[in-house]
Amino acid sequence: MVRAVIASDVLESFVAAQQSVVHEAKWQIDPNGIRVRAVDPANVAMVDTHLPARATESFEADGKRTLGVDLDRLANVVGMADSEDSVELDLNEQTRKLNIRIGGLEYTLALIDPDAIRQEPDLPDLDLPATVGLPADELARGITAVDLVADYLRLAADPDTRQFVISAEGDTDVVEIALGDDRLASAEVDAAAESLFALNYLADIESVIPSGSTVIADLGTEVPVDMRIEDAGDELARRWLVAPRIQSE
Amino acid sequence: MVRAVIASDVLESFVAAQQSVVHEAKWQIDPNGIRVRAVDPANVAMVDTHLPARATESFEADGKRTLGVDLDRLANVVGMADSEDSVELDLNEQTRKLNIRIGGLEYTLALIDPDAIRQEPDLPDLDLPATVGLPADELARGITAVDLVADYLRLAADPDTRQFVISAEGDTDVVEIALGDDRLASAEVDAAAESLFALNYLADIESVIPSGSTVIADLGTEVPVDMRIEDAGDELARRWLVAPRIQSE
Amino acid sequence: MVRAVIASDVLESFVAAQQSVVHEAKWQIDPNGIRVRAVDPANVAMVDTHLPARATESFEADGKRTLGVDLDRLANVVGMADSEDSVELDLNEQTRKLNIRIGGLEYTLALIDPDAIRQEPDLPDLDLPATVGLPADELARGITAVDLVADYLRLAADPDTRQFVISAEGDTDVVEIALGDDRLASAEVDAAAESLFALNYLADIESVIPSGSTVIADLGTEVPVDMRIEDAGDELARRWLVAPRIQSE
Repeated sequence: MVRAVIASDVLESFVAAQQSVVHEAKWQIDPNGIRVRAVDPANVAMVDTHLPARATESFEADGKRTLGVDLDRLANVVGMADSEDSVELDLNEQTRKLNIRIGGLEYTLALIDPDAIRQEPDLPDLDLPATVGLPADELARGITAVDLVADYLRLAADPDTRQFVISAEGDTDVVEIALGDDRLASAEVDAAAESLFALNYLADIESVIPSGSTVIADLGTEVPVDMRIEDAGDELARRWLVAPRIQSE
Repeated sequence: MVRAVIASDVLESFVAAQQSVVHEAKWQIDPNGIRVRAVDPANVAMVDTHLPARATESFEADGKRTLGVDLDRLANVVGMADSEDSVELDLNEQTRKLNIRIGGLEYTLALIDPDAIRQEPDLPDLDLPATVGLPADELARGITAVDLVADYLRLAADPDTRQFVISAEGDTDVVEIALGDDRLASAEVDAAAESLFALNYLADIESVIPSGSTVIADLGTEVPVDMRIEDAGDELARRWLVAPRIQSE
Repeated sequence: MVRAVIASDVLESFVAAQQSVVHEAKWQIDPNGIRVRAVDPANVAMVDTHLPARATESFEADGKRTLGVDLDRLANVVGMADSEDSVELDLNEQTRKLNIRIGGLEYTLALIDPDAIRQEPDLPDLDLPATVGLPADELARGITAVDLVADYLRLAADPDTRQFVISAEGDTDVVEIALGDDRLASAEVDAAAESLFALNYLADIESVIPSGSTVIADLGTEVPVDMRIEDAGDELARRWLVAPRIQSE
């Protein structure tokens, strides 16, 4: 048995975090909540998100369940809710369908065979020398600026200036956003860090990060960037790892 | 002679009602107002609408006239008006053109030969066992929900529960909106009623029904649904009949 | 050396005026400001605009410079600014690049070889018999109305009625907007004037004219129309000439 009542905006954020990386996901449900860890087909971006039972209005699960969820279809249904609506989820174990209730609306969502969904990735063990607290709106601005000139962006942190720099070089033009203490929520830079990333992965992730929140980003040199949302006010845990583009010599 | 001054929002609603079913229509004008009855090329949806002289600012017609109107072009012109503008219509009988004046704007609309427009349908005589007063916003929500899963929707009324149900079955998913007394403006259900309709016809009609108004829907089993707008506050009469999709055994 | 600090909305309007006619332009810079004069590839529309030093927050230029500017790319960068931001421009003479700073954002814009850009046109010497002060919103409305029926519009002024008339004839329909003293800011009509213009040129120009401003239009018969923006409150000078379509006999 799995039965939950979740504020529509919390469920929407939870699903959107997953959609920033994949279209289908395995939901690991236990009495503590729902955890999803997924990696995109190219193995570049990974999302790890947890909807804890305490972030719901009610949550019952008798043991562990793995559900295969078509995220786009679920998001469409949840999108039918008004912002103040609650969404009821009720697993029908016989039919392997998820009953979704929003006001007078009842939607029966066919689940996917979890074995047909890409395996969950292991989280790599990273020891990253730089950590910055990046306002989501600065990240958004950086991505918009980079998009004017290139498909790749460089993230860098400097231990001396304690600046975090988003930059890109296009065929003719160059763009750089240097964020110092006055524009960062926090900065701890033990050593220089610099990696190149594909813009579209970071743009997809940025698009689901709530405006006004802070992104904690751990950065190294030619290693993945590790980003978490802090203080979005919805108790959801959301974390992303994005692999760098290794530059040829 | 035909000469009328009509508030732009009333004229816009009148034309939009027709556009929900056809692109060209025969306007039957007499001293009491303008009546339009039209059916779509597939004979599925019919609209019957009347703009009474009392809903205009002034209305003069010396006898009966039939005008062939290109609704899309007329709607574009009326769309030039601000919401507080009045629209003057003045028929030039010699040229068979309609002069349209909105503020300093004068538009001369060529009329269509009425004989080139589909004949007006007869209204069928229906005796439908269920009548519900359906808030336009519930209808809109039902259509949006159905659109997530299928191209057809089922409308049903139950004499015992007095519920009105909008539902659809897709390849994998099912959606149902059950509206009881708390969500209906009224419900009289003498016998069970259930019919299947093509979504796009109802969606086109729904799109021109003012938010906040009530739709009176008469329903039977495998017969057309008969819908009227009540209380839209503009004195326009608007009625639609939509034929059911007869289900093969 | 060229160095300027300009309110983002002023710079945006200056660039937009040029974009209404061309995608690349030669900027003629001297200590008094920046002047741009350009003509479209078909030699139909000409723009002449001046950003005076007094309309900037600071402006330094030691002598004359000609810069070749990709307007679309520059507009994208300026579009990154919030409305209250200032934009710093700083010419790097060695690299022939323009450094653009907006808050923490630094963008390096590669300049174009000015010799690769169409030569600046001479301003024709016109003696036009009619001058009207046309509210931008009336011009916008006229262009929207004409767009319903045709690709060409007629502008005319009548010395007797002192009306300014925007009109167009389509294959079946005709539209006319007659503006009298009550709708014009001013009108001096010494002789009848009437010329035909391609709609798209005027529509592109109209799209960059601030709502609420007044367009001073000088008009003759089968000669270019000369339009200036008056009182847009930003001290920019913006002037357009559009050649008429000469009607075959």
